[in-house]
Amino acid sequence: MQTVNTASSIISSSRVNGTNVYNPAGEKLGSIDSLMLDKITGQVRYAVMEFGGFLGLGTDLYPLPWNSLKYDPNQGGYVVSVSREQLDNAPRYESNTWPDYNDEYGRRVNDYYGVPYV
Amino acid sequence: MQTVNTASSIISSSRVNGTNVYNPAGEKLGSIDSLMLDKITGQVRYAVMEFGGFLGLGTDLYPLPWNSLKYDPNQGGYVVSVSREQLDNAPRYESNTWPDYNDEYGRRVNDYYGVPYV
Repeated sequence: MQTVNTASSIISSSRVNGTNVYNPAGEKLGSIDSLMLDKITGQVRYAVMEFGGFLGLGTDLYPLPWNSLKYDPNQGGYVVSVSREQLDNAPRYESNTWPDYNDEYGRRVNDYYGVPYV
Repeated sequence: MQTVNTASSIISSSRVNGTNVYNPAGEKLGSIDSLMLDKITGQVRYAVMEFGGFLGLGTDLYPLPWNSLKYDPNQGGYVVSVSREQLDNAPRYESNTWPDYNDEYGRRVNDYYGVPYV
């Protein structure tokens, strides 16, 4: 993730969660719900964006590869290169249903956003 | 962080937060409040443990280097090699007061738990 240079390069997950996500056209796509990280190394692999639903009902969760996100200080949110239409076919799951984040799923997600799966 | 081998090595930050932290003697030290991560790389540097206080008042936050934590499936929580007495002098700050997580602070925290600062 690219961001502005600040005094500290460390940020709290509590500040990341709830941050809005936009596309390059400036349209709001959703907001960050949580982070998915590697248990062993502590490397964040995905920021999970929530979108849709009402009062938490019917909300869909979209895993976005960490490397696909850029922070835009002007908008105060993250930007990912995907149109709203493209989001229709993006990998997602309903709130409270967790996919198995195995290699196959990881590759599918990263491929969708054009980010190498390492 | 060391953990058991499961189908997926990916975990949600929402499952890490709230997890208990114990010392090797099995005494509960606190629970995870949030994670501190590198904005650019997405590498989790610290799990912030909360301890003390009552109903959120007077709670202290202790940054624990990610590499100092091991997951113990038997206790269902993380284990860090520090006694309750040692915790008295550990780097900490009050809830809602954020230190600058700069290099100097990072080194102080990692030194306290005997983990190399990279």
